[in-house]
Amino acid sequence: MNFKIRAAKKDDCKDISRMIMELATYGKMPDEVKISHKELERDGFSSNPFFQCLVAEVPEENKSKEGHTIVGYALYIHTYSTLKGPAVYMEDLYVMPDFRGQGIGKSLMSKVAQLGKEKQCMRLQFAVLDWNTPSLDFYVAKGAQDVTASEGWHFLRFDGEALDKLANEAED
Amino acid sequence: MNFKIRAAKKDDCKDISRMIMELATYGKMPDEVKISHKELERDGFSSNPFFQCLVAEVPEENKSKEGHTIVGYALYIHTYSTLKGPAVYMEDLYVMPDFRGQGIGKSLMSKVAQLGKEKQCMRLQFAVLDWNTPSLDFYVAKGAQDVTASEGWHFLRFDGEALDKLANEAED
Repeated sequence: MNFKIRAAKKDDCKDISRMIMELATYGKMPDEVKISHKELERDGFSSNPFFQCLVAEVPEENKSKEGHTIVGYALYIHTYSTLKGPAVYMEDLYVMPDFRGQGIGKSLMSKVAQLGKEKQCMRLQFAVLDWNTPSLDFYVAKGAQDVTASEGWHFLRFDGEALDKLANEAED
Repeated sequence: MNFKIRAAKKDDCKDISRMIMELATYGKMPDEVKISHKELERDGFSSNPFFQCLVAEVPEENKSKEGHTIVGYALYIHTYSTLKGPAVYMEDLYVMPDFRGQGIGKSLMSKVAQLGKEKQCMRLQFAVLDWNTPSLDFYVAKGAQDVTASEGWHFLRFDGEALDKLANEAED
């Protein structure tokens, strides 16, 4: 299928927000989504954006049955490794189910890698749920290492009341 | 012990670089460190810094046996959750062994949380190696969740030749 990968624009935020909800539903956490297209517009398209985003677009004649031409996205952040220097963290990679198996996800991810390399990034990292074997298999087939399995890295998180408590204990 | 938490300055990069090596040695990967104070100065103290950093400083009379007054650091990055919005990723938290057990690590981490909350961050995330039980116990005692254990999140990574190959397959 004919498709194009391009940088997201502010006008794409409704489509990105729709796909964030689709991805969260697939990830079994639809109730966890607390941001809408308004927050995406504010946080991603101001003078100091929190994130970068690519979208995959198909021609009008290939639109989805609901009428969408934006059918995938990759949202990523520039981070830093104190071992290796600049790095990229890919927060989300998503392609709508009817558009899978045609290289769109691979093209989005390759473009994130290419843009990262142009900024001297030495790593592309991301997180996958362990029950999501289709995604794990996809990434490993493309050359990714599961460093939780191979090196034992665990993700830890403070949020909600635990984060409030921690922050309140800081000295001014 | 008397100590002060403050934002790192460019002049602190030699100390931060020294402690990155100490932390990497503790993490059993000293050969992995590819950046020096020069890269830290360039990447953290230019107009668009890749990271933020706090240091812990003790008075001259409490300096380490090697003569150091900068005895800990927390290096962090502003990231983004497509579920919750702005977030903080703490790349490193380190306190020199002779200065542990006195609240310095907790104070560094609380300050990262406080500064994150001021920027509307809803999450503080970081990664810990599974054999590092003293650190895991420390974080969990402070209220962190191990979301690799509880939700199954795995870290994946492209680097080296795998990253080059992926980037080279992108379309221009």
